[in-house]
Amino acid sequence: MADIWLTSLITETPQEGFELAITLSRRGVKYTQPNTEVLHKLRSEYAENASDLTAASQVVAINFQTVACCQ
Amino acid sequence: MADIWLTSLITETPQEGFELAITLSRRGVKYTQPNTEVLHKLRSEYAENASDLTAASQVVAINFQTVACCQ
Amino acid sequence: MADIWLTSLITETPQEGFELAITLSRRGVKYTQPNTEVLHKLRSEYAENASDLTAASQVVAINFQTVACCQ
Amino acid sequence: MADIWLTSLITETPQEGFELAITLSRRGVKYTQPNTEVLHKLRSEYAENASDLTAASQVVAINFQTVACCQ
Amino acid sequence: MADIWLTSLITETPQEGFELAITLSRRGVKYTQPNTEVLHKLRSEYAENASDLTAASQVVAINFQTVACCQ
Amino acid sequence: MADIWLTSLITETPQEGFELAITLSRRGVKYTQPNTEVLHKLRSEYAENASDLTAASQVVAINFQTVACCQ
Repeated sequence: MADIWLTSLITETPQEGFELAITLSRRGVKYTQPNTEVLHKLRSEYAENASDLTAASQVVAINFQTVACCQ
Repeated sequence: MADIWLTSLITETPQEGFELAITLSRRGVKYTQPNTEVLHKLRSEYAENASDLTAASQVVAINFQTVACCQ
Repeated sequence: MADIWLTSLITETPQEGFELAITLSRRGVKYTQPNTEVLHKLRSEYAENASDLTAASQVVAINFQTVACCQ
Repeated sequence: MADIWLTSLITETPQEGFELAITLSRRGVKYTQPNTEVLHKLRSEYAENASDLTAASQVVAINFQTVACCQ
Repeated sequence: MADIWLTSLITETPQEGFELAITLSRRGVKYTQPNTEVLHKLRSEYAENASDLTAASQVVAINFQTVACCQ
Repeated sequence: MADIWLTSLITETPQEGFELAITLSRRGVKYTQPNTEVLHKLRSEYAENASDLTAASQVVAINFQTVACCQ
């Protein structure tokens, strides 16, 4: 994965920070499963499962702590 | 999701901070599953499941750390 | 939920801080499932399940970090 | 639960801090399930389950962060 | 495991920090299961499971907090 | 458990810190299940289970935060 996708943890608004946390959470998945097709298929499944959605929100919460701490 | 929903992490009281943590937790879910109808259906299910409720409370706890740290 | 239940994170003793963490954990559940009757029924179930009890203790631990950090 | 069990988070050695973290983790369970008999029965079960033991160790790790931060 | 694989937590860019967090997460697994063949087999399984991928992303998020805090 | 196994959280290198985090994670398990024979049997099982390995890596990540923060 040679592309540059993260150059700074500083964001202009808290909401942009939250959205960066979402990006970080998805990237954490993508490093393990880089196949976009597989990811789309899985997403359509876990997006209808309450436990999976809560788990996803938890990863976002952890990454948001990191982003918020760096402001 | 072009709407602005988070402009500050500063709250006037700790309870407002806790309620902001709840908002952050729900938004973390909504970025993955934006369909309100699906969310309502899932909610009626996991709101009767002890493990799911504890998991939801955990996400709130993590987001509350972030909010509390920013005061 | 218009009642005021959290006015400060400062406690007089560490144990009171721990007990506040328990309150925060239960409130995190109650915002999702406000029906007291349902909560009592679920509690009698998960209070006999080791995984659920450990998960509950984990939420308390996270909230206790927040309380301890604010002293 | 009127007994006093936590008067300070300061410990003399790191190991005593780790053992305090274990106490905190068990207390987190006990506030939800105060019945000692039930707790002993559950313990004999989850002490033979790898996932449950890892989950227990995770709660200890979180509480140990709190204790270590307060030294 | 006598090899030296971690000499510093300081990275030149946030993205390198995130990639170090991925390394830390994998090493955390490898200390428990050092057999590379077993790891490859397991990876091909959990890389197609949404819950496992989210859990992996969560470990990365926690390690990324550590790396980000050390910059 | 009268033996002294933790006298300091300070390590000479980050890698030693990571290995201390592994020790802490295992000790967290051992306080709940001190029977070495049972632990060995469980280990051979969860070392071949992706979810269990990720969970183990997560406990290491949390303990590594504690160790890194104390340097």
